[in-house]
Amino acid sequence: MSNTFGKIFRLTSFGESHGMSIGGVIDGMPSNISLDFDMIQNELNRRKPGQSHLTTTRNESDELVFLSGIFEGKTTGTPIGFIIENTNLRSTDYNHLKDAFRPSHADFTYEKKYGIRDYRGGGRASARTTASIVVAGALARHIIPEIKISAYVNAVGDIKLNQSYQDLDLSLTEKTPVRCPDLTMAQKFMEKITQVKKQGDTVGGQVTCVIKNVPVGLGEPVFDKLQARLAYAMLNIPAVKGFEYGSGFNGSRMTGSKHNDIFNPDGTTQTNYSGGIQGGISNGMDIYFTVAFKPVATLMQSQKSIDKFGNELVLEGKGRHDPCVVPRAVPIVEAFAAMVLADFKLMNVRS
Amino acid sequence: MSNTFGKIFRLTSFGESHGMSIGGVIDGMPSNISLDFDMIQNELNRRKPGQSHLTTTRNESDELVFLSGIFEGKTTGTPIGFIIENTNLRSTDYNHLKDAFRPSHADFTYEKKYGIRDYRGGGRASARTTASIVVAGALARHIIPEIKISAYVNAVGDIKLNQSYQDLDLSLTEKTPVRCPDLTMAQKFMEKITQVKKQGDTVGGQVTCVIKNVPVGLGEPVFDKLQARLAYAMLNIPAVKGFEYGSGFNGSRMTGSKHNDIFNPDGTTQTNYSGGIQGGISNGMDIYFTVAFKPVATLMQSQKSIDKFGNELVLEGKGRHDPCVVPRAVPIVEAFAAMVLADFKLMNVRS
Amino acid sequence: MSNTFGKIFRLTSFGESHGMSIGGVIDGMPSNISLDFDMIQNELNRRKPGQSHLTTTRNESDELVFLSGIFEGKTTGTPIGFIIENTNLRSTDYNHLKDAFRPSHADFTYEKKYGIRDYRGGGRASARTTASIVVAGALARHIIPEIKISAYVNAVGDIKLNQSYQDLDLSLTEKTPVRCPDLTMAQKFMEKITQVKKQGDTVGGQVTCVIKNVPVGLGEPVFDKLQARLAYAMLNIPAVKGFEYGSGFNGSRMTGSKHNDIFNPDGTTQTNYSGGIQGGISNGMDIYFTVAFKPVATLMQSQKSIDKFGNELVLEGKGRHDPCVVPRAVPIVEAFAAMVLADFKLMNVRS
Amino acid sequence: MSNTFGKIFRLTSFGESHGMSIGGVIDGMPSNISLDFDMIQNELNRRKPGQSHLTTTRNESDELVFLSGIFEGKTTGTPIGFIIENTNLRSTDYNHLKDAFRPSHADFTYEKKYGIRDYRGGGRASARTTASIVVAGALARHIIPEIKISAYVNAVGDIKLNQSYQDLDLSLTEKTPVRCPDLTMAQKFMEKITQVKKQGDTVGGQVTCVIKNVPVGLGEPVFDKLQARLAYAMLNIPAVKGFEYGSGFNGSRMTGSKHNDIFNPDGTTQTNYSGGIQGGISNGMDIYFTVAFKPVATLMQSQKSIDKFGNELVLEGKGRHDPCVVPRAVPIVEAFAAMVLADFKLMNVRS
Repeated sequence: MSNTFGKIFRLTSFGESHGMSIGGVIDGMPSNISLDFDMIQNELNRRKPGQSHLTTTRNESDELVFLSGIFEGKTTGTPIGFIIENTNLRSTDYNHLKDAFRPSHADFTYEKKYGIRDYRGGGRASARTTASIVVAGALARHIIPEIKISAYVNAVGDIKLNQSYQDLDLSLTEKTPVRCPDLTMAQKFMEKITQVKKQGDTVGGQVTCVIKNVPVGLGEPVFDKLQARLAYAMLNIPAVKGFEYGSGFNGSRMTGSKHNDIFNPDGTTQTNYSGGIQGGISNGMDIYFTVAFKPVATLMQSQKSIDKFGNELVLEGKGRHDPCVVPRAVPIVEAFAAMVLADFKLMNVRS
Repeated sequence: MSNTFGKIFRLTSFGESHGMSIGGVIDGMPSNISLDFDMIQNELNRRKPGQSHLTTTRNESDELVFLSGIFEGKTTGTPIGFIIENTNLRSTDYNHLKDAFRPSHADFTYEKKYGIRDYRGGGRASARTTASIVVAGALARHIIPEIKISAYVNAVGDIKLNQSYQDLDLSLTEKTPVRCPDLTMAQKFMEKITQVKKQGDTVGGQVTCVIKNVPVGLGEPVFDKLQARLAYAMLNIPAVKGFEYGSGFNGSRMTGSKHNDIFNPDGTTQTNYSGGIQGGISNGMDIYFTVAFKPVATLMQSQKSIDKFGNELVLEGKGRHDPCVVPRAVPIVEAFAAMVLADFKLMNVRS
Repeated sequence: MSNTFGKIFRLTSFGESHGMSIGGVIDGMPSNISLDFDMIQNELNRRKPGQSHLTTTRNESDELVFLSGIFEGKTTGTPIGFIIENTNLRSTDYNHLKDAFRPSHADFTYEKKYGIRDYRGGGRASARTTASIVVAGALARHIIPEIKISAYVNAVGDIKLNQSYQDLDLSLTEKTPVRCPDLTMAQKFMEKITQVKKQGDTVGGQVTCVIKNVPVGLGEPVFDKLQARLAYAMLNIPAVKGFEYGSGFNGSRMTGSKHNDIFNPDGTTQTNYSGGIQGGISNGMDIYFTVAFKPVATLMQSQKSIDKFGNELVLEGKGRHDPCVVPRAVPIVEAFAAMVLADFKLMNVRS
Repeated sequence: MSNTFGKIFRLTSFGESHGMSIGGVIDGMPSNISLDFDMIQNELNRRKPGQSHLTTTRNESDELVFLSGIFEGKTTGTPIGFIIENTNLRSTDYNHLKDAFRPSHADFTYEKKYGIRDYRGGGRASARTTASIVVAGALARHIIPEIKISAYVNAVGDIKLNQSYQDLDLSLTEKTPVRCPDLTMAQKFMEKITQVKKQGDTVGGQVTCVIKNVPVGLGEPVFDKLQARLAYAMLNIPAVKGFEYGSGFNGSRMTGSKHNDIFNPDGTTQTNYSGGIQGGISNGMDIYFTVAFKPVATLMQSQKSIDKFGNELVLEGKGRHDPCVVPRAVPIVEAFAAMVLADFKLMNVRS
């Protein structure tokens, strides 16, 4: 019963992996904005499956159809309904899962909570539902054109980029399918994923997101702090296990005399351990945060499991899936961040 | 404009550090529940300042007064208004801060966002506002009596408890003022804090929270997943920089074949990297998460800063503050977790 | 930015009169309910245009397509997306209205508020958007199968049914296209509408709704009283100018000694001026209310008006429209009432 | 669980008739507004009991205390907590009502819904809770200083003012305690109330509200239309049975050719049957609406009733109450209207 995200700029999402279509309704989009439809479709393409050998072979064109709220290329202030058809369905791939609970999947919890579930392709729990987030994020970017949001893969398994984002050329992120702007590391990440894939295994990773040109004043204390809403968004992405911003977990190891960001006379700060946010409100410095993703639970290996009657069974590796989720997670992280910032911008004019 | 937390069980909070009182309104509390007033006040006492030499010397009795919603000791289903007077005020301590922006405090951002701020004691950005969370959490516990929530200090600065929560006796947490159940480590934590305090410095730390006996089915996909709401709550606590649950950041380094939690025939799992949540819904296993806190920004040292006119100045160490926030954060983390779980329990009634 | 209705059971609606399709997303529908698809489509058919000579000649099949949230005929607890294609479009009918503001239409206010509008067929302000309400209402009825909701036409222009609903056989409502269960009055209503239509004019009317078998306890004081939410729903229907429940406006003329409903020993009351609600909460007696509709603003007569540049112009009677809105309003009133009651039922299990 | 009203400008209310105090929290109030404290208290005084012989003799000073959100006389953008003490309590007056259900009161429904109730003075169902609305309304007026809201008594029992508001001098409303600007009618209204009071009886009435200088563009279609939110607000006032705006119920009797409001070249209209709203959005013309109130249910006469065990009993006329609610309802209607308009103004900033 919680398929709406946002307060002023709101996405209400619907759809299952193997239903007719997925989609959503975006409410609160300001009127009279000319939409860049190529950009919107391009964001979807960045997320879609089948982009490279690093991702699942499910081949979806992810063609976006807007149903309302747009007139002669501009937003009208009325809700924007949209759908993306599910086309490349092989639902019979999932017949063997009708009663089975896959380890570390949501089969068990959906079954117990709702007493029924669409088992095909993970149903509503499928990462396919993130396509709606990407659409909403692309629209949100039209509200905050001054803000630049750039995410990239920061780690694959135990291999981690050791540089700070300031030392990277973020324009290189899209140069490789693994979406790491350090091309040497990108190579290592791709090798790691390829190797894991060969073993029928999967691997986790991390995505870092950098947000520049944020106006001072976004975020609503005390219960909708900017960092809290970003964390809320990110932890709603399937497979995410952790979130840190600014100095993050490392900051907890520091002393105040080292951690405090001393002001320059113009209100900027000499360091930015704060991560661009103070008291839940943006301070104009770069916002940056890192998101941890667990390894994909679907393996191309046999695994012991149970069915809903409590019978033990062995699941064979079948179906189509990503060996590592982080390359495709990059546009999702960016999109969710854009939704959060656009919403706070619209809220802030009302403070 | 975002001072309400929760969907069914909702706290609306108000109050500044040096105003007349802080307080709140709790709406959505089920009727006909006998309240344990001693427990509620006791939770407040766990959070209040002046408990030990590890905490600020501001001395507040934090006496809770309920104004409505309770009749003959029981909840009536109507909103519960409450206040806690601010008594031990030394507002003149803050006169020198009228125009100053303290480093890594919210002075700058509140001033820029609102064009005005109550500079006394941090105003609304003060951690004093967390007392309302503790009250709401104590009421929330009445809704989920079967669930056991236990938080403890897991790290102070760079000293970290290396054991998993399973290896700890959580009944020992309150034995020391630093709230670490490993008493040897507790000693080290206290020494660290004492040492840092002597230097007029502060230090960060981490709190881990364990939630047992959670019924299967709590959490509302896809945009109010249980882990997402927990992260949202925790990142709304002042000074929090990061959140991870289950395998957390470490999980991102693992392969799927290691990370997957294999089912037992009864639906429990052999491992619990998932942290008690699958697809945003509790699976009945323990929920556990860790929260990272930055070092307190107020130092007993001189620091360079600026005022709101852009003039440089030097701030002398003054006022009363905690050298390390994590011991007092323990009841806040627990309270917020209780609010989240109670809310999801009420939401789950008829999914 | 307010296209969502309800708190637990929520419809988010989208679509314009002459866009690709209208539709919505229903969130909060309980899981595991077998849907009666014939009933749902039938409710849509009761609302659709072109049913009789009393209604507009726009001919829409109003074929409902569910996109998600349903598996093997049952609800899954996930959001239910649906669309209804717009087929019988004659958008060129509206070219002459591109810049014109029709009297007592929303052309002027949409233009001023949003700076842009889809002028074809009234765009988002079209009564066509009420089809989504009818779909949501039909789903809501599955949540409250014990409750019986029956609306009927109570007045057309200055001709008014003088009987109370108790004296009517509500099973006769659908016997005539005008939806009045008193068949003699139905005849008069139809004659009135026919006569007005011949003159190229339109006429207002009233709809009364009766709700039986309501459990005691629905409604949430103090700001979401049952009568308040019903009024809120009804005043959101296009063309509605007034709402009264129970004794209504007439009750304001009475004395307390006449108006008070004296209890029977079983908690029922001897009279029901209260209209089944006390203090915002249902008391188990019949709920009844009446809704006033203004005459349709589109006439088949010439009218003076202006365009958006302030030029005067004459609008010719063109396009397709209803001479009287109340017959088709009957299923809309019922549907909105069903949504309200279902939502309160879901809220009440949480009190 | 629904004690919050509004979307951006939000009042969360608490308190019972005979608890320690009533009060609320106002969130979303813009910052940096100088408050007119005399005006705010004066609005409370207009509502308070004991103003004249026409009202209850309960004597409450209704002294307002602000607890937060205001600094040096200005709003800070943080939530504004406030309380009003309950002082003139005679709770023992209600001992005989401990188990009794008074006719047409909320005793029965609260008991059944919550299983417990504070029976003293009607508890949460008391009209005393409307004091919080008046406070919030007075703050809301600071957001919309350009808008003029004037309500007055339009009818007492079967005596009704026949003039339109345009023919009245609304500056005379406060000249008499009955708050009717036609002083001849005011006299008749007062006589009627006095006569009814002598008989130990009560009488209903109507309040009309006129809103001038409304900017074009307030209101949020399709589910938060301006008229819908006004109706929602008004029907949440205790004792309200009906709402109509613009032409209202009378408009339902008219033909379109008479009812349509023809534009002047400047966008104003020659008539205003629309009541200042088209398609749910203000059009800049006067908004006007009428609210019907039932007679107060508490009589100074004996009445048959029952207790919660189903025993019959006779209630003696006791306690303190108003013989007619409409004079004191005038500031409540105005306050709620102000809250609605302020909220829509804040919502409209960036539609």
